[in-house]
Amino acid sequence: MKPVQIVKIGGNIVNDEDKLDKFLQCFIQLNHPKIVVHGGGSSASDLCKKLDIPIKMNNGRRITDAPSLDVAVMVYAGLINKNIVAKLQGKSCNALGLSGADLNIIPAEKRTGTKIEYGFVGDIEAKEINTYFIQRLLDEQIVPVFSAVTHDTNGQLLNTNADTIASTLAVALSKKYHVNLTYCFDKIGVLKDIEDDDSLIDYLNKDKFFKLKDKGIINEGMIPKLHTAFEALNGNVQNVYIKHAENISNEIGTKLAL
Amino acid sequence: MKPVQIVKIGGNIVNDEDKLDKFLQCFIQLNHPKIVVHGGGSSASDLCKKLDIPIKMNNGRRITDAPSLDVAVMVYAGLINKNIVAKLQGKSCNALGLSGADLNIIPAEKRTGTKIEYGFVGDIEAKEINTYFIQRLLDEQIVPVFSAVTHDTNGQLLNTNADTIASTLAVALSKKYHVNLTYCFDKIGVLKDIEDDDSLIDYLNKDKFFKLKDKGIINEGMIPKLHTAFEALNGNVQNVYIKHAENISNEIGTKLAL
Repeated sequence: MKPVQIVKIGGNIVNDEDKLDKFLQCFIQLNHPKIVVHGGGSSASDLCKKLDIPIKMNNGRRITDAPSLDVAVMVYAGLINKNIVAKLQGKSCNALGLSGADLNIIPAEKRTGTKIEYGFVGDIEAKEINTYFIQRLLDEQIVPVFSAVTHDTNGQLLNTNADTIASTLAVALSKKYHVNLTYCFDKIGVLKDIEDDDSLIDYLNKDKFFKLKDKGIINEGMIPKLHTAFEALNGNVQNVYIKHAENISNEIGTKLAL
Repeated sequence: MKPVQIVKIGGNIVNDEDKLDKFLQCFIQLNHPKIVVHGGGSSASDLCKKLDIPIKMNNGRRITDAPSLDVAVMVYAGLINKNIVAKLQGKSCNALGLSGADLNIIPAEKRTGTKIEYGFVGDIEAKEINTYFIQRLLDEQIVPVFSAVTHDTNGQLLNTNADTIASTLAVALSKKYHVNLTYCFDKIGVLKDIEDDDSLIDYLNKDKFFKLKDKGIINEGMIPKLHTAFEALNGNVQNVYIKHAENISNEIGTKLAL
């Protein structure tokens, strides 16, 4: 099977011009075919604050009401996405910015039936992803750039976690490609001691993950990300890595295993 | 030559859910291949106001500084574009939202050397438009939805007037397609008496246009739009119409001629 690189970047990179540029410089050196999935970190919340849109919470979980969804679409699918596309084009990389609504690539289902009403949040499944058009794009040497926006196929946009989009895309594509999925972090990978880069865990399986989690060595922010990353392995994604954005084209980082 | 429909819609439609829905209902009934180009009217200025971004003017012309450009990208390429795409997908029309940076479809040049410094405004030329990818998309029955955002090919997004994008796209495609370019207006076309729909001018050539302009019958807002529309005819676009959004699939409207 042909290889494909899927690289997820988060708010720490996309909201820092210098870091974003360094990442893109590394990314363009990866062989085709390749895909970027980006989050937006706190930038949507920041815009909500400026617009006096209250951030609604329910049991500690954030609710995406209609005004917050509009902001997410503006920031993720608009500002961040198109800036990444323009910067890649500036480096002669033929990028195409996408939401899940474009070409109906990622149909989602509005989350319902949960104790908490999440609002306009979309759940996605690998088997629903429209891999036909992704393949067509990759065959044309086009680099899809995915934002964290999906749709319900009935005209409604939805917000979907970018880590989940990366993982679900990877699972969907693993049927036709040998997928290398990389989550970019601030650190060089999963560390035994967050202050010490020399404590890199270069190989992390689920057992070890649960042990480190129990000991409190893997900290809170990383836990849901690692869960999502392990889900990709459960879905038969061939390789999943946690790396620093500047190491995506070398071996430095944590390789996950079941 | 194969026909292609290019339909430009403005702020009066995209900012009114009911009008937008009626337009899209008509649009999906047009035969393939077809393209939407949308503006955003006052919605970007409205967001600037909410964010306390001053609207800068120079000799009565608006300046697109960096914060205003970000707002234009968020509103045009994000919110409006993705909502149109999701609504078209909801009507089983396979839409793909695009800025000029995506696939490098519309390279632009930052406007310089003018008396007024316009800021991040991009001028475009038909010969620079990347018709290869547009054709590939149209061949796949995909409906491109263009926002009023372009790029300088060096990583910088730019704002370009949506009427101009429609006209320039039409000129570029007229080499390979029989182009029908329609500008959607509030009225059923160009009227002799703006209050009277029965006064429709169903055929308007440049001579007649200049006479009506001199007499003050064609009013201010329409003049630059008609100039842009006539530019399409100058560039050998086969058919150019001014119509009400609900008449795009019938004969009612004003047909322009040189």
